[in-house]
Amino acid sequence: MTDPLLLRALRREPVERTPVWIMRQAGRYLPEYRAVREKHSFLELCRTPELAAEVTLQPIRRFGFDGAILFSDILVPVVAMGAPVEFGDGGPKLARPIRSRADVDRLRVPEPTESMPFVGDAARLVVRELPGEVPLLGFAGAPFTLLTYLVEGGGSRDFAETKRFLAHAPDAAHALLEKLAETVARSLAAQIDAGCAAVQLFDTWASALSPADYASFALPAARRVFEALAPRRVPRLYYVNGIAGLLELAAASGADALSIDWRIDLGDARRRVPHLAFQGNLDPHALLGPLDSVRAKTRAVLESNGGRPGHVFNLGHGIFPEAPIEAVEAVIETVRESRPVRS
Amino acid sequence: MTDPLLLRALRREPVERTPVWIMRQAGRYLPEYRAVREKHSFLELCRTPELAAEVTLQPIRRFGFDGAILFSDILVPVVAMGAPVEFGDGGPKLARPIRSRADVDRLRVPEPTESMPFVGDAARLVVRELPGEVPLLGFAGAPFTLLTYLVEGGGSRDFAETKRFLAHAPDAAHALLEKLAETVARSLAAQIDAGCAAVQLFDTWASALSPADYASFALPAARRVFEALAPRRVPRLYYVNGIAGLLELAAASGADALSIDWRIDLGDARRRVPHLAFQGNLDPHALLGPLDSVRAKTRAVLESNGGRPGHVFNLGHGIFPEAPIEAVEAVIETVRESRPVRS
Repeated sequence: MTDPLLLRALRREPVERTPVWIMRQAGRYLPEYRAVREKHSFLELCRTPELAAEVTLQPIRRFGFDGAILFSDILVPVVAMGAPVEFGDGGPKLARPIRSRADVDRLRVPEPTESMPFVGDAARLVVRELPGEVPLLGFAGAPFTLLTYLVEGGGSRDFAETKRFLAHAPDAAHALLEKLAETVARSLAAQIDAGCAAVQLFDTWASALSPADYASFALPAARRVFEALAPRRVPRLYYVNGIAGLLELAAASGADALSIDWRIDLGDARRRVPHLAFQGNLDPHALLGPLDSVRAKTRAVLESNGGRPGHVFNLGHGIFPEAPIEAVEAVIETVRESRPVRS
Repeated sequence: MTDPLLLRALRREPVERTPVWIMRQAGRYLPEYRAVREKHSFLELCRTPELAAEVTLQPIRRFGFDGAILFSDILVPVVAMGAPVEFGDGGPKLARPIRSRADVDRLRVPEPTESMPFVGDAARLVVRELPGEVPLLGFAGAPFTLLTYLVEGGGSRDFAETKRFLAHAPDAAHALLEKLAETVARSLAAQIDAGCAAVQLFDTWASALSPADYASFALPAARRVFEALAPRRVPRLYYVNGIAGLLELAAASGADALSIDWRIDLGDARRRVPHLAFQGNLDPHALLGPLDSVRAKTRAVLESNGGRPGHVFNLGHGIFPEAPIEAVEAVIETVRESRPVRS
């Protein structure tokens, strides 16, 4: 019995072909997901282990991806910290943004098995149903990315409030990042204990920062999370959207693999950081093109990796609701035709 | 008589200190600009040489920047091509987006002295008023960035329509880029002929593309513009917002200087592309912090450049309307204290 393909690739071992999964693969582009969502709210899905497990498994049944990722939301731990979030059509909204040291001090560091038991329960249900060769990935938002939601009171285009907060109240920002790092580390540890064989930390908005600010705020907080997980010995992935200017810094986070967006050439990234595994990095918009172009762009990503061990195929960001099923199939077929990788 | 500081820096010659100007320095953060805008619409400003000259000169009078940049809008040439644009508070809107080869074929390549005479007239008025040591920069939107407005029908967050267009109608996209390149080259040539001593091409949205798509679409069109201007022998700057993953490609555009955003370390950029001048790259949000932090971050940019010849200080993107005047003063004072640069 060999380990699952995805885990071997993340450890940069030889593989018979490149593994593939897709960020947000349990999502609105799938008719079977939309059918579940017609009957249940997004939050119900997150909080009901049977529903979370069902939508986690849907893309595995349909496509046979090489990895499943637990259905949840990066703000679930934030709610457990004592910051209520409303999940509406216009994106998440926080009634009371966090903008002062006093706000930070009011937040608690929750124990996931008590305050988010449904996450571990969902993971256990999924692992029971998954084929043995498909590992389950746990995930969490990285401390800085969670901070942006807390400070902005929701999503943001330019993160002006976040940057004001970092500049005017750096001590409060560091205190908040510390609480978030501890919360996230506990949440990921609980997911691993419930059966997740790898974890991905999403620092989606960290590239709003200059490299110097990233190094002062986002990076040490992400590093704390990865360090806390080291004893559990599962592959730790780190995703930053817009990573090109932060690549060497992000590589110093302690992650085993960098999950990269499409605005950097994969081969260049691997030359700059030769000692880590990589995941990515097809432009999610590529799936809106003709199928021939989908296949060509998928092949171009594989060619850019150039047979280096330690590549997991993925998109450079989450899949869009508009992505056609046939485009996803074209990606998967093309990756399955990839050549064996020897170390 | 030596040449102006800004031009010498762009030619990577020794300078007594680092020159400084600010993208969108003629803009809403200035009370005197807002006073003019209370009486005149944005488009009136663009189309009335006296008004355009007045707001171009305002930041020079107040701060004594080392360069002036002609007040205009990157969509002015697009209007002259036959694509009407409405400039409202929600950003520019095009009544009829360009989405087919037939749409492209209907656009004309205008002669700027006939269809946009007010641009050259404004430049001549400004040059007459400017102190001899302050050169005037001309500017234009780069072909790909203009294409995004034409195809999306305005601004966009994710450029989905643009990417659909490139994937489904690459020939029409190339034809459009060619028309835009010719239009832009003529517009910049006319600005130089009217007295501009340098030009900047804004490819603000090019980093929405993967490096491969950038190399296929945006880059050759920008290169065509720079090549057309070569005989006029003025420094040509190229700005891409989010340039980190495209740096080496953008350096092959034929530009003399790269104007870079804040999401890449300036020193790293200069190590990767040692043969060009650079402009940048303070995070515009830095100006919203306390003045001590504004000064520290300004010094950090200068230190990151590390005394290399060929640095023009600027922000990494346009200044925000919310930026306090005192923050701009703090930036300028700090840059003026910079050390001489020997080659």
